[in-house]
Amino acid sequence: MCIEIYKHNKEERIARTWGTTAEGLPYVKEAIENAGNWLIGGDLEVIEPIKYNDGLDQYRLSPVELREEFSRRNADAVFAFQLRNPVHNGHALLMTDTRRRLLEMGYRNPILLLHPLGGFTKADDVPLSWRMKQHEKVLEEGVLDPETTVVAIFPSPMHYAGPTEVQWHAKSRINAGANFYIVGRDPAGMKHPKEGRDLYDADHGKKVLSMAPGLEKLNILPFKVAAYDVKKQKMDFFDPSRPQDFLFISGTKMRDLAQNRKDPPDGFMCPGGWKVLVEYYETLLETVSNGSATHFPGVRKQGSFKRQSTP
Amino acid sequence: MCIEIYKHNKEERIARTWGTTAEGLPYVKEAIENAGNWLIGGDLEVIEPIKYNDGLDQYRLSPVELREEFSRRNADAVFAFQLRNPVHNGHALLMTDTRRRLLEMGYRNPILLLHPLGGFTKADDVPLSWRMKQHEKVLEEGVLDPETTVVAIFPSPMHYAGPTEVQWHAKSRINAGANFYIVGRDPAGMKHPKEGRDLYDADHGKKVLSMAPGLEKLNILPFKVAAYDVKKQKMDFFDPSRPQDFLFISGTKMRDLAQNRKDPPDGFMCPGGWKVLVEYYETLLETVSNGSATHFPGVRKQGSFKRQSTP
Repeated sequence: MCIEIYKHNKEERIARTWGTTAEGLPYVKEAIENAGNWLIGGDLEVIEPIKYNDGLDQYRLSPVELREEFSRRNADAVFAFQLRNPVHNGHALLMTDTRRRLLEMGYRNPILLLHPLGGFTKADDVPLSWRMKQHEKVLEEGVLDPETTVVAIFPSPMHYAGPTEVQWHAKSRINAGANFYIVGRDPAGMKHPKEGRDLYDADHGKKVLSMAPGLEKLNILPFKVAAYDVKKQKMDFFDPSRPQDFLFISGTKMRDLAQNRKDPPDGFMCPGGWKVLVEYYETLLETVSNGSATHFPGVRKQGSFKRQSTP
Repeated sequence: MCIEIYKHNKEERIARTWGTTAEGLPYVKEAIENAGNWLIGGDLEVIEPIKYNDGLDQYRLSPVELREEFSRRNADAVFAFQLRNPVHNGHALLMTDTRRRLLEMGYRNPILLLHPLGGFTKADDVPLSWRMKQHEKVLEEGVLDPETTVVAIFPSPMHYAGPTEVQWHAKSRINAGANFYIVGRDPAGMKHPKEGRDLYDADHGKKVLSMAPGLEKLNILPFKVAAYDVKKQKMDFFDPSRPQDFLFISGTKMRDLAQNRKDPPDGFMCPGGWKVLVEYYETLLETVSNGSATHFPGVRKQGSFKRQSTP
C-alpha cells in the first residue's frame, strides 16, 4: 500500500482550478480555505459502499454498478447528461433528441445516464433531495422514458470551475461507462465573484474537452439551445430565424415563479415536477415564518430567498 | 490563412500560468498587465529571419537551423540545457557528465545544446549580452568542448512560472531536435512575491514533464546537485556522506563576490568567464557613479545592485 502525503498549497490549487483567486468563490471558502495544510492520497480499497441513509442510497451507483446496469439493459451507446438543476422540458427535449440522433447514427439501444451532481452546490441551487424528487416525477410522467434512462447520483461536489471542472465531469462519466457526453455553452460556469462578468470564456469548456488527454474515447455532443416557443406553446430548439417567438426562462426566473406560486408557461415543465419545486420553496417560507431566519428582514421580497436557502 | 482573435483574460492567464495572482510577479507587469484586451493568433509564415543587429544574431538559430546543425555534426543524441545564468563549473560538470552517461548508454556522438534564454529576465539576472560573452569564454577555455557543444539563443522571455513554464522549455527543445532534457529541482522557480516562500513545489516541474502530453518523446534527465568541494577544491557532485565538505554558492553569493571584486574559490568558474562577470558589475558601478542612478543612495552596499541592474 502506498500512502502519499503532500503539501496543500491552497492558493495554487485555487488559482489553477478557477483561473482566479478572487474572494467569494463557491466551494473555496467551505472546503478549501478551511481545510488543513496537508493532503493525503493513494490507492483506495472499498470495504463496503458508503451509505448516507437519506432515502437516496438506491441512486448512489458506483461506476462498476453503472456499467453493470448498462450491460443489463443491453446498451450499445451510453450518453451522459450532467446537471445540478431541476429538469425542465428543454433539458428533456435535448436528451430525447440526442437519443434520436444516436438511433439515426445506427445505434440500436442508446441509454441515457441522467447523472445529477450529489455533493456541494451553491446556496441558491435546489438541494439534492428536492431535485431527486423532481427527477422522479419527470420519469413518472413520461417526459423521459424510464426504459432508456438510468438515474444515478454523481457524488461529486460542484466547483463551478468551468473548463477545468468539465474535464472531471466528462472523465468520471467515461469511467462510469458513458461514450457520449452532452456539453453546452459555458459548462460549470458562473459569474466572476467580484466583477459580475462571466468568469470563463463560454467556448473554453467544449474546446478543452476536445483536446484534453484521457478524453479521446468520449464523443462530445454539442448542446443545442432550447427555449420556450410561445407560438407552439412548448419548449423547442431555438430558431434564430424567428427570435421574437422564444422565451428564455433562466434558473433565476424559474425560482422566482416557484417562490411566488406563479405557474410557468404551459409545457415548460411537467406538472408533477413543477409541484415539487413549489413545495420546496414553500418549506423555505415556513423556515422563515417560524422564526428560524428572523435575521433576514423583508424576506418575502421576490428573489430574496437566495441568501436563506442552504443545500 | 486563418486569423484567430480572442479575448485577453489577463487574470485567468496569470492565475493559470503562475498559480497565483499576487502582485509583483516578474513579466506580468511588464508584458501582461500593460498589454491590450485582445490577442491575435494563427499560422505564421516566415518571410525572412528577424535580425536584432546586436552582435548576437549568429546565435539566433531557428529550430530548423538547429536540427541542420545537429545533422551536420552527425549527432545521434541531443541533450538540451536551459539556463538564464552564467555557466559555472558545476553546470559544466553536469553537462559533461550527461555526455559521459549518454556514451555509456551506447550513443556515439551526443551533442549538447547550450540554450540560454534570450528574452525578458528579472532585473537582477545578468543581461543576455554579458551572459553570451561569459558562455564564449567557457568554450574558449575548454570547460565545455566546442566540438560537441552548440550554443544558441532560445528567444523566449522568462516567466518564472515553474511547472507550467518547464513544459514550454522542454517542448521547444523537442522542436529544436533535442531528445534529452536536463531538469533540476524547482525549474523556472522563484520565491512567492509576497510570502517569501518558494512559489512552487520543487518536485512538480519534474513530475509534470513526465506526465504532460506532447513530451513523450523527450527523455528527462534528472539534475544532480553540484557544489564546491572544499577538500578537492573544485565543483563536484554533492556527496551526502560528507556534507561539511561542500559549499553551495548561490547566484546571489556569486553576484556579491563579483560586485565586490572578490575572487570565488578556485575551480568555481573558469577565470575568463569570471572576468566577464566582474566587468559587467563594474559597468553597473560606472552607471551609478556617473550620476545616472543618483536616486539610489548607499548603492555600494553589498547586494544593493539588484534594484539598479536592468537586462
